[in-house]
Amino acid sequence: MGRVTVRRPVLRLSEEGSRRRQDALAAEEPLELRVAGKALSVTMRTPGQDVELAHGFLLTEGVIGAAEDVSTARYCDGRDAEGRNTYNVLDLALRPGVEPPDSSLERNFYTTSSCGVCGKAALDAVKLKTRFSPAADASRVSPETLATFPGRLREQQRVFDSTGGLHAAGIFTVDGELLVVREDVGRHNAVDKATGWAVLNGRVPLAGTVLMVSGRTSFELVQKAAMAGIPVLAAVSAPSSLAVELADEQGITLIGFLRGTSMNIYTHAERITGS
Amino acid sequence: MGRVTVRRPVLRLSEEGSRRRQDALAAEEPLELRVAGKALSVTMRTPGQDVELAHGFLLTEGVIGAAEDVSTARYCDGRDAEGRNTYNVLDLALRPGVEPPDSSLERNFYTTSSCGVCGKAALDAVKLKTRFSPAADASRVSPETLATFPGRLREQQRVFDSTGGLHAAGIFTVDGELLVVREDVGRHNAVDKATGWAVLNGRVPLAGTVLMVSGRTSFELVQKAAMAGIPVLAAVSAPSSLAVELADEQGITLIGFLRGTSMNIYTHAERITGS
Repeated sequence: MGRVTVRRPVLRLSEEGSRRRQDALAAEEPLELRVAGKALSVTMRTPGQDVELAHGFLLTEGVIGAAEDVSTARYCDGRDAEGRNTYNVLDLALRPGVEPPDSSLERNFYTTSSCGVCGKAALDAVKLKTRFSPAADASRVSPETLATFPGRLREQQRVFDSTGGLHAAGIFTVDGELLVVREDVGRHNAVDKATGWAVLNGRVPLAGTVLMVSGRTSFELVQKAAMAGIPVLAAVSAPSSLAVELADEQGITLIGFLRGTSMNIYTHAERITGS
Repeated sequence: MGRVTVRRPVLRLSEEGSRRRQDALAAEEPLELRVAGKALSVTMRTPGQDVELAHGFLLTEGVIGAAEDVSTARYCDGRDAEGRNTYNVLDLALRPGVEPPDSSLERNFYTTSSCGVCGKAALDAVKLKTRFSPAADASRVSPETLATFPGRLREQQRVFDSTGGLHAAGIFTVDGELLVVREDVGRHNAVDKATGWAVLNGRVPLAGTVLMVSGRTSFELVQKAAMAGIPVLAAVSAPSSLAVELADEQGITLIGFLRGTSMNIYTHAERITGS
């Protein structure tokens, strides 16, 4: 099975001079996802929780909504030059009646017949796909509870602290219960693993939860929250303009720069108690 | 023309209580790249320097090697709901004789007929594509010069400091001259804009240069350096395992955790003076 960290020799230069040592690196390997034997995507990811990653990916794509929509998930019997299985190709079969995804260029997006691709079109594309809109979710969360999330996310990352190279995504309830933490070299993969865990455990739509991410918030991360029915998305760093627009439109509470008890609330502050 | 930052109202919570204020966000908008009218990719990017971005993207893809390989680049006349041009679709025409890219799923990668996708296959795919291998580049750079790069990169980012949401990529000569700095909400786009600038200014292959990035180093960033002929890649944060493997194989000096005068040298330390 894939390794999460890889040890490599490194030459360290510092005030104290130079010395050779072993360093732990975040493992990165390609994963090819296939649906019914047909290649759908190749993503560079940290090995581990690949079945969760696949479920989260298909949830974001709007292909599945529950664990039952996938009938089987199996690694292909791929071998590398040394004859070991690479465990880097995962083939999924969908339940009869579940429409397979479009594997063309347009699959993650929309291309208009005219020259009109714009942020608005991107927002509309998500609106069309969402089946678990979090807009009506009336849950509320306190700033004090939110303040604990970055530290608790970081605590769960302790094993990989040595690499400094992994993004983390955690799902908490609004009452502060930690449901799952997942890590990956790719921000999107960390979120896909976390929401994929939720699919596999019958927790989607994720009403009454907060998705906490270690970095910045892009359009695509908000899209993933919307597709999973998550009403609150909090990040340690900044959001992009389109992330804020999509959160606003999808009824998601978007928080940035969550550090200690201070934070920026960009949209739907009504879910934050006391504000 | 696209905006680099967007102002939005935000509710700020802190020890001092809550207050409403205006906040600057990094702009994110989709850009559709077309070659000869055919859609090639859609990327979420910060508007600006789109022509550079397109040139850098096609350089990484192995489609072009010089500015002359692109005969024209023009924005389509796309309009949003308010009738304004979105400037989000860029159509390029290639010089006769330049092979257009394969726009299928495999274009950025390789899928094997068997189930053997693995890190090795990814490394091999880059080896096949590189036309400006930096392996033979005998330039050397001093730790003292390298130590100035993170600060100088950050200085050039001053305009966007307020957003906290932009990745930066800079190209320096090994003597310490700054050639170009570019920023984007996407790490890859920032590098594509910088190498695209080099294509347009006849600076590719980028012999004797250092690519400095504000974040982590993934396989794909090393691939971009290899395709542009850049011999040294330095980052503020950690590399992934496959980034180190590819740098080793392509003869690239890979540096991580470059902070002050300390740094980790993962591969080809012979280009660092005194080590």
